[in-house]
Amino acid sequence: MRSRRTVDVPALVEQAAEGNARAVARLISLVEDASPVLREVMALLAPRAGHARVIGLTGSPGVGKSTSTNALVAAYRRLGKRVGVLAVDPSSPFSGGALLGDRVRMQDHATDDGVFIRSMASRGHLGGLSWATPQALRVLAAAGCDVVLVETVGVGQAEVEIASLADTTLVLLAPGMGDGIQAAKAGILEVADIFVVNKADRDGADQVVRDLRYMLSLGDRRTDAQWRVPILKTVAAKSEGADEVVEAIERHGDWLAATGELDRRRTARAADEVEAIALTALRERIGDLRGGANTGGLDKLAGRVVAGEIDPYAAADELVAAVTA
Amino acid sequence: MRSRRTVDVPALVEQAAEGNARAVARLISLVEDASPVLREVMALLAPRAGHARVIGLTGSPGVGKSTSTNALVAAYRRLGKRVGVLAVDPSSPFSGGALLGDRVRMQDHATDDGVFIRSMASRGHLGGLSWATPQALRVLAAAGCDVVLVETVGVGQAEVEIASLADTTLVLLAPGMGDGIQAAKAGILEVADIFVVNKADRDGADQVVRDLRYMLSLGDRRTDAQWRVPILKTVAAKSEGADEVVEAIERHGDWLAATGELDRRRTARAADEVEAIALTALRERIGDLRGGANTGGLDKLAGRVVAGEIDPYAAADELVAAVTA
Repeated sequence: MRSRRTVDVPALVEQAAEGNARAVARLISLVEDASPVLREVMALLAPRAGHARVIGLTGSPGVGKSTSTNALVAAYRRLGKRVGVLAVDPSSPFSGGALLGDRVRMQDHATDDGVFIRSMASRGHLGGLSWATPQALRVLAAAGCDVVLVETVGVGQAEVEIASLADTTLVLLAPGMGDGIQAAKAGILEVADIFVVNKADRDGADQVVRDLRYMLSLGDRRTDAQWRVPILKTVAAKSEGADEVVEAIERHGDWLAATGELDRRRTARAADEVEAIALTALRERIGDLRGGANTGGLDKLAGRVVAGEIDPYAAADELVAAVTA
Repeated sequence: MRSRRTVDVPALVEQAAEGNARAVARLISLVEDASPVLREVMALLAPRAGHARVIGLTGSPGVGKSTSTNALVAAYRRLGKRVGVLAVDPSSPFSGGALLGDRVRMQDHATDDGVFIRSMASRGHLGGLSWATPQALRVLAAAGCDVVLVETVGVGQAEVEIASLADTTLVLLAPGMGDGIQAAKAGILEVADIFVVNKADRDGADQVVRDLRYMLSLGDRRTDAQWRVPILKTVAAKSEGADEVVEAIERHGDWLAATGELDRRRTARAADEVEAIALTALRERIGDLRGGANTGGLDKLAGRVVAGEIDPYAAADELVAAVTA
């Protein structure tokens, strides 16, 4: 546990804004730990919002997310862009594995100071990664990243939520993964802005593309004003197709900006974040009313509920009144 | 979807309090659906708090929870007690399976009007089963149950939370289940008031008892004022040992009452429930501030966050101020 006193927040933010990788890593650790200095960090980061495009990358285990991320980083570097990578693991309450992951991932880009790569797990956050991720994104944006790739495992509901944090969400599939299309059915289809069929040199890749095309044809997303979700083929291990994916991301970015959808997505994302922080603050106020010393305290109300003197809704009304007094 | 108008709440509560099984089932359906009439239901139930003892029953799949529940119901019926059974499935967002479960479970006690059996899943509740369960318990208590058995699958964190809703928690284990002791290690040990080693006629039962005894000896729960967690053996399929389990539950009840622990547990449970309802109300107030029409609205704040004019914590402060104004 780091003491609050040991963190010189303004200096740390200054260093991160200058692109110091250690300072960036330190700030993201503060985010992971839900450090009490985060409020100060975010206040200092606010005027340094930057212009990072946030790209979500999701898919089932085994579709080649890490390889694809590496190929995309290389493609963006060829364009001279500064790139951040945030690999989030919604299932892990620990970051031990994440640290190992960092080292493995760093190999291709370890010596490139135009790339920040960071794995993240939510240790202390009540709101979990849906709260921590935008804060980490804010750090990477302030550090001058033009693009941040947010990589998540495409299993369950968590990744759909995290995908919603991105400006553009890529859903990766691969042939020979029985669950690829099933995953798509279970909500992934809704969040995908771009489909990437990786391992396209393998048997069955064209079938995956056909299946996706068929499913997209069933949806009603194809009106003129809406984005036509492209389906791209890549062989990330051979860096094939990454430039085309970057082009599609750029086209999607143009569409987002032209339709006002970019503002809408970013505003909705910020609203979720502000709401989560506000709810935590309100929860803490309620927590302060536990203990019974307070006459309007929660324990006293609970005792009256147990005694059948009031019902829990009436008690909750009194509690809300006490919290908002 | 049932319309609010079709529910005559006072009549329904009256019928349930008279022990009408259909009315009890209907009220628990309202709980499951997070119906808007719940506030009225709970207000009417408050003065009918009853005296039901709440017994939690948890354990890994395959240890014989349903069979044990049936055996305990029979044992309580022999004592002339009215018994409610609430089988909760924290993992299921649907109650389709639960309905099937009801039918299967009903076979032994279907014709006994001293027994209410109900499976439950949380469909609409924001607070999930940790909220719905105490409401369902309140219905069953008002219906005159002397005992309510709450049966949950012992996997993950949810069942630990639900176990905390009980006055007395039974943790079931069985020989030949590799994960039995591991489950115990992962928090179950902390919540168990009584251990039941079911399928005690099988090889390995004594080893499970020895393992448990050893683990209990490592804990510091054995001071004089504290409850000594008993380890009982049953063969629920042959109804062996159920009477002894009921005796142990009664002894634990005496201990709870004598030490004031019963009040403490019930007050903590009510406090959790009241807190969950209050937080939902506050969340709804925040929701009302979305949409942008409101000048102090969340969307406007979010827009300022996106523009870098304020940080999300400062925005959350403004949101809390607006909600508590």
